[in-house]
Amino acid sequence: MTRVTVWSENVHDQKDSAVKAIYPEGMHACLAQGLAEDRGIITRTAVLQDPEHGLPEETLEQTDVLVWWGHMAHAEVSDTVVDRIQRHVWEGMGLIALHSAHFSKIFTRLLGTRCSLIYREAGERELLWVCNPSHPITQGLPPCFELPHEEMYGEPFAIPEPESLLFISSFEGGEVFRSGCTWTRGAGRIFYFRPGHETYPTYYDPNIKQVLKNAVHWASNATTRWPTRLENIPIDKAPRKIDLHSTANHG
Amino acid sequence: MTRVTVWSENVHDQKDSAVKAIYPEGMHACLAQGLAEDRGIITRTAVLQDPEHGLPEETLEQTDVLVWWGHMAHAEVSDTVVDRIQRHVWEGMGLIALHSAHFSKIFTRLLGTRCSLIYREAGERELLWVCNPSHPITQGLPPCFELPHEEMYGEPFAIPEPESLLFISSFEGGEVFRSGCTWTRGAGRIFYFRPGHETYPTYYDPNIKQVLKNAVHWASNATTRWPTRLENIPIDKAPRKIDLHSTANHG
Amino acid sequence: MTRVTVWSENVHDQKDSAVKAIYPEGMHACLAQGLAEDRGIITRTAVLQDPEHGLPEETLEQTDVLVWWGHMAHAEVSDTVVDRIQRHVWEGMGLIALHSAHFSKIFTRLLGTRCSLIYREAGERELLWVCNPSHPITQGLPPCFELPHEEMYGEPFAIPEPESLLFISSFEGGEVFRSGCTWTRGAGRIFYFRPGHETYPTYYDPNIKQVLKNAVHWASNATTRWPTRLENIPIDKAPRKIDLHSTANHG
Amino acid sequence: MTRVTVWSENVHDQKDSAVKAIYPEGMHACLAQGLAEDRGIITRTAVLQDPEHGLPEETLEQTDVLVWWGHMAHAEVSDTVVDRIQRHVWEGMGLIALHSAHFSKIFTRLLGTRCSLIYREAGERELLWVCNPSHPITQGLPPCFELPHEEMYGEPFAIPEPESLLFISSFEGGEVFRSGCTWTRGAGRIFYFRPGHETYPTYYDPNIKQVLKNAVHWASNATTRWPTRLENIPIDKAPRKIDLHSTANHG
Repeated sequence: MTRVTVWSENVHDQKDSAVKAIYPEGMHACLAQGLAEDRGIITRTAVLQDPEHGLPEETLEQTDVLVWWGHMAHAEVSDTVVDRIQRHVWEGMGLIALHSAHFSKIFTRLLGTRCSLIYREAGERELLWVCNPSHPITQGLPPCFELPHEEMYGEPFAIPEPESLLFISSFEGGEVFRSGCTWTRGAGRIFYFRPGHETYPTYYDPNIKQVLKNAVHWASNATTRWPTRLENIPIDKAPRKIDLHSTANHG
Repeated sequence: MTRVTVWSENVHDQKDSAVKAIYPEGMHACLAQGLAEDRGIITRTAVLQDPEHGLPEETLEQTDVLVWWGHMAHAEVSDTVVDRIQRHVWEGMGLIALHSAHFSKIFTRLLGTRCSLIYREAGERELLWVCNPSHPITQGLPPCFELPHEEMYGEPFAIPEPESLLFISSFEGGEVFRSGCTWTRGAGRIFYFRPGHETYPTYYDPNIKQVLKNAVHWASNATTRWPTRLENIPIDKAPRKIDLHSTANHG
Repeated sequence: MTRVTVWSENVHDQKDSAVKAIYPEGMHACLAQGLAEDRGIITRTAVLQDPEHGLPEETLEQTDVLVWWGHMAHAEVSDTVVDRIQRHVWEGMGLIALHSAHFSKIFTRLLGTRCSLIYREAGERELLWVCNPSHPITQGLPPCFELPHEEMYGEPFAIPEPESLLFISSFEGGEVFRSGCTWTRGAGRIFYFRPGHETYPTYYDPNIKQVLKNAVHWASNATTRWPTRLENIPIDKAPRKIDLHSTANHG
Repeated sequence: MTRVTVWSENVHDQKDSAVKAIYPEGMHACLAQGLAEDRGIITRTAVLQDPEHGLPEETLEQTDVLVWWGHMAHAEVSDTVVDRIQRHVWEGMGLIALHSAHFSKIFTRLLGTRCSLIYREAGERELLWVCNPSHPITQGLPPCFELPHEEMYGEPFAIPEPESLLFISSFEGGEVFRSGCTWTRGAGRIFYFRPGHETYPTYYDPNIKQVLKNAVHWASNATTRWPTRLENIPIDKAPRKIDLHSTANHG
């Protein structure tokens, strides 16, 4: 069983009637329901408004993959919680960052870049093209699929070169974007996936749901954790004998 | 002319007589003098104790490459200054992080990982092997060179896979380390170089000086800056015509 | 069940009594027996002397991962068979290239570089250090393990930067080597693993066997195959309408 | 002075009147003239029909960067000449592969993949977007530029992940393509650039010429050559003392 925590800032969903109409239980609920179609995935949800944003130590300890959707409230996420998430990613928790999470604290911290881009909100058509048909995240998809209405994100996307580039989008206005990218940080696997503007029913789309289910399985990494502390190796534990030389401080 | 600012925390150099004996004017002074042997490089120095750590906006604006040495005082570097440095790296300033700067705020922020490692301070011999003899940073070096006394750093080094791996060290005790690595973040080129424990005269070594001079030229990137803000592209500026569809919010 | 074909050139094993004493049934037999300790792996063997080197189309079609050991007879491997192997790698067959297979036709063709290195045959001690403790191939291993006698391979190793660097070796003589590296070519996952000189019992070592079992599971990729042909998309199959303009050849 | 050899198969240019009308002296002549606008570049040309395809050893020795255009005659290029080019790339000669050179012998050999793609010849509009505005190859360009008529190439493009992705194209039909990619093989820098179907005047376009001039400077790498042979390091040349142990063959 892969244990997923779906987090959403849950702000638009509360305030904007257009968003409420599409996601009456919140975007996190829709995302969790889509993932739970897969019997190998067990989900819980958490939102910004929960104590500790719903992400106390115990929850992250029981989370194999964290799914993150945020947009207008990035700055309200507490640095203490972000520190905690980052440590868990280093130790092996997967992270799936969705849409405007490109500007979230946790994503920009893990990548180390600005993650800026160009954008336009015009409800235009988006085509998603599979660049790497043999990656686990692209299985079960057609070579190209369409979302009838989405916000446009365009290049240049200020990210480190992805370890794997999985999707490129083209938009009705002609712009293009690296819509599916992976990186590794410590033991943690990170997947960024572009679609998901709050005013469109993107997360009900069967292809989108397929990508997210695949991504959860890919990002779940049940291996040894990286050490996160320095470790001192005394001289008598070195694999080979060291001659202590007459230096200033080893005389 | 490549303009370099050499920064050092300048703490050991003040307190520890062994360090003072080797670097009487401070490590930053020795590093700057080594670089200044190259007539294409112009240097200045800055230390932790200076106002704004010697790195106000004007100084960074006039810096093509920042060289950073820190060890015991990482936590004393102000977040405001680190924010400023990170922005300049994104905009194209090179960064050369030396030795224990693997744990500095600026380096770990740009990489996004923990940057932990194993270590031993026993003054043992270090061999540095060139892995990539055609990289600009390894020019003018022998295939292997020795430092007679150094602190040991060993794997696993918790970094993202380097874009180029240039040096691997082996130590007398048998440990190995990725001692020269490059990454890019935005327009900024980053080079990590392992040697330089404060109690050894490493920065006087001719091969080490050669590496640092090469690295400064490599890291200086006089190209277009990446945008660091989102840019909105209105509908009438899209390269192709967009049909406005009858959606909930674009009716 | 992961289906593995272990291939060896089987030349030293026939001619050299020292090799025969260590690997009386051939190196391929020892490698296959080590893998078969894992109940999820089913093995067969093939050697240079077999018709079509034991690798006809039917065999490769039933092979999830091909393990390759060769040394002095690289040039005797038929180009037709190498073409066939390369196509299967592109379509998803994993490849594990061992020791002197760094100079085999199939490995150098897939990498595109010369794969040269420095070497010494002196039966010296080799230490293998894990650089990436969270990769599937390094699970179940100590941070460092020793082989008491091995041939030395040293840097520079003329390879493209690995996608993941898993092991670095240090040798008694002081040299270092990137001993475990991964790449992807099409759908095929490639792992190079350094140890295995024919005059030492390296493939009986429990840590080496653990690496190879892990590598087989990692390299087995049961996903969609990449297309290997060009595909023409006629105008009426384009996702968006194309205006045919009055150009010289589309008037 | 950067010395460039522009090679073209020169087949369409001879047979097809539409191509002849656009490139009366051949595509290689147009490409060379565009590069020669840069006073730091000196060009020569060579074609398939020349003895040794115009690429004898002496010519390659005097070539810093080789530009390659081929389409229908890939199979007619002699393997001996391809071997020679590959060796020169490993030793530091840059290679710029244009348009249908994605299927040339030299490019597929250096990459190690199939380099397949989807395509359509309908003279449609192509938009090229800059993904990495701080790379030397993208300097002096607008964020996006258009070619009014081009052949479409689409994903999936069966290449190893590029070291740097510089351009993504979107086509009128909606397809996308990684149109500008870099790799390194040995000391050689490789740039693939998509545009340039023979029936359109693409190589007269000012932005295309700017890209090619930039690429020539980037690909020219006047550093130490990688060794291309194995080198034996005798025991007494090892940096550290090796104890000769009593093994079967070192008794």
